[in-house]
Amino acid sequence: MHSPEIQSSLQVELTRASYPILIGHNLESSIRDFMETKRAQGHTVCVVADMGFSEEQAAFMEATFEGYPILTLPSGETTKDAIYLERIYTFLAENKMDRSGYLLAVGGGVTGDISGFAAATFLRGIGFVQVPTTLLAMVDSSVGGKTGINIPQGKNLVGAFYQPESVFISTMLLQSLSNREFSAGMAEIIKYGMLGNCELFERLESMSRLHAAHPELPDIIRICCQEKTNIVQADERETASNGGRALLNLGHTFAHAIEKVAGYGVYLHGEAVSVGLVLAARFSHKLGLADKEVEERAVDLLSRYDLPVHLESPLSTRALLDAMQSDKKVHRGNLRFIVMHGIGEARTHGDIDESLVVDVIESGRELPF
Amino acid sequence: MHSPEIQSSLQVELTRASYPILIGHNLESSIRDFMETKRAQGHTVCVVADMGFSEEQAAFMEATFEGYPILTLPSGETTKDAIYLERIYTFLAENKMDRSGYLLAVGGGVTGDISGFAAATFLRGIGFVQVPTTLLAMVDSSVGGKTGINIPQGKNLVGAFYQPESVFISTMLLQSLSNREFSAGMAEIIKYGMLGNCELFERLESMSRLHAAHPELPDIIRICCQEKTNIVQADERETASNGGRALLNLGHTFAHAIEKVAGYGVYLHGEAVSVGLVLAARFSHKLGLADKEVEERAVDLLSRYDLPVHLESPLSTRALLDAMQSDKKVHRGNLRFIVMHGIGEARTHGDIDESLVVDVIESGRELPF
Repeated sequence: MHSPEIQSSLQVELTRASYPILIGHNLESSIRDFMETKRAQGHTVCVVADMGFSEEQAAFMEATFEGYPILTLPSGETTKDAIYLERIYTFLAENKMDRSGYLLAVGGGVTGDISGFAAATFLRGIGFVQVPTTLLAMVDSSVGGKTGINIPQGKNLVGAFYQPESVFISTMLLQSLSNREFSAGMAEIIKYGMLGNCELFERLESMSRLHAAHPELPDIIRICCQEKTNIVQADERETASNGGRALLNLGHTFAHAIEKVAGYGVYLHGEAVSVGLVLAARFSHKLGLADKEVEERAVDLLSRYDLPVHLESPLSTRALLDAMQSDKKVHRGNLRFIVMHGIGEARTHGDIDESLVVDVIESGRELPF
Repeated sequence: MHSPEIQSSLQVELTRASYPILIGHNLESSIRDFMETKRAQGHTVCVVADMGFSEEQAAFMEATFEGYPILTLPSGETTKDAIYLERIYTFLAENKMDRSGYLLAVGGGVTGDISGFAAATFLRGIGFVQVPTTLLAMVDSSVGGKTGINIPQGKNLVGAFYQPESVFISTMLLQSLSNREFSAGMAEIIKYGMLGNCELFERLESMSRLHAAHPELPDIIRICCQEKTNIVQADERETASNGGRALLNLGHTFAHAIEKVAGYGVYLHGEAVSVGLVLAARFSHKLGLADKEVEERAVDLLSRYDLPVHLESPLSTRALLDAMQSDKKVHRGNLRFIVMHGIGEARTHGDIDESLVVDVIESGRELPF
């Protein structure tokens, strides 16, 4: 394989660590203990928190983080910007963060993404701890190590794969989440059932409606994190050409296009995913891969959480197709979808005929469900 | 260990890949073949190159990179800035870089550091290939994955550990390097001998003066890369509290202080390292750890490459001490040095008495060598 001009070579092999995800209804003392222990050992500990969450859960913030430097960042996607990244770097430098220190991110996906990227890049990586405060962040951001910011050329174009030291999932923190935000997280939970865990899907079908204080919620979250862990471990850097991490995007090719064309903020991400899951099920049926029943059961379960199962107002088919084409998950120019062969059996499917996609999008307008 | 409030937990384990360092006198066709193969497979390949090198080795650049998008960056440390990072992101976005693509960095440490950081963070990591064009970059930047930029709060404060896909070390490219730059690289090579490989040190003592076309140079470079690989593999993220990656900083605590106090650019980095190695040997002797002979042999070998073995003009002792204290490699507030118990036997040594450091710095002025 090597050319004769190569006189010598050597192979550099590296490995990386593992981390725990701790789940419970109220992990306040565990989080506090973690910080106190690290501080007692001489490590610097800093906190970056979502401003909206900090205001709503002032008592939790006070009890848990009192005495530690805190930087609060505005809620919302516009915070994932180089300006706020610089603000975090300055905050860390001012608090004499060194390589042995820890940054705790307390908030949803936006706080986790930008704080994780700051932690990944400050001093080439400091300790990072996640305290997700939305259901979506608990099941989606706890595993996978995706961190990043948006740049003028596109969303999430700059970032890093960076693993936290620990993740503390305290479902009590969801009590201040609106029903709409909770349901948006449920769309991702239902997605895990649909893509690879039929048992989870059936359990969700058979149980009472989940809410922040539901005793089974920690276990459901654990199953989703385990599901994502299995997929990520097999394809850490999203390099698998078939299956692998791409499966996590079930419903997301449609969802990203819907969010973009409707205008960001019109649909919550989880709401767009909900519509996307229904369209993915219908698409799979049209391809002859899945029974019609898959779509029906998806619609039924998503509807129980008041999630949208079709577009709330019509969007241009052309604009949706264009958005799909420019999605960075397009694989070397080919439109690739995640399809289902049944509930819990997602696969990647390449070389998709555009007219079939058009059919599915347009059927979404006519069908009454 | 876990508190009872934690209802469940799971462990996420991840591993990372390995990469080859290919070494030879002229790897032009190997580099070209690599790029052609990747392009034929549908991958985007972009090149970031040092402007000074590109001008001096125009024939090599033309023959190797013709037909590929090239962005050239000014030589010098001021290029390691957020402004140039953004310029690389824009270049990559304009050339439709996707996750399966490759960025080749052609240049010295500055080009490698900023390009590596851009590769680490664009789309959360694209393929990165190094073509080092200075001796220092060949033996120092090929292993270890350190990438980064400077921010107003400090040098290299923002960066990532990111491993290349491949490294092509073509010693022919050193032919346009000035003698002074070549010698600066030799200081790092001699450092590898002094810190962990007595055999390498003795080989350098017994051989004729190395130069770009010297037939043994590729093998000497391989030994240095192997030496660094052994150390980095044992301590990938510089977390070892004793020994480990810190050993690579032999002579560097003094060197960084000298560079900073003299004003960046007065000493080449390798020249400051040369003085630092002599001071580290003397310091080790004063601590009663090493024979006087260690310093003498270091002075002899470094002098053969016309490297400075003492400060060329006096610097303030107080300023040097302050610079050492603020060096980010200070371990949780303690001044820590890398000392030698003999040639090839470096160790970390904490809780250093400042007055001893003062002695060593001040003796450097008086001794005639």
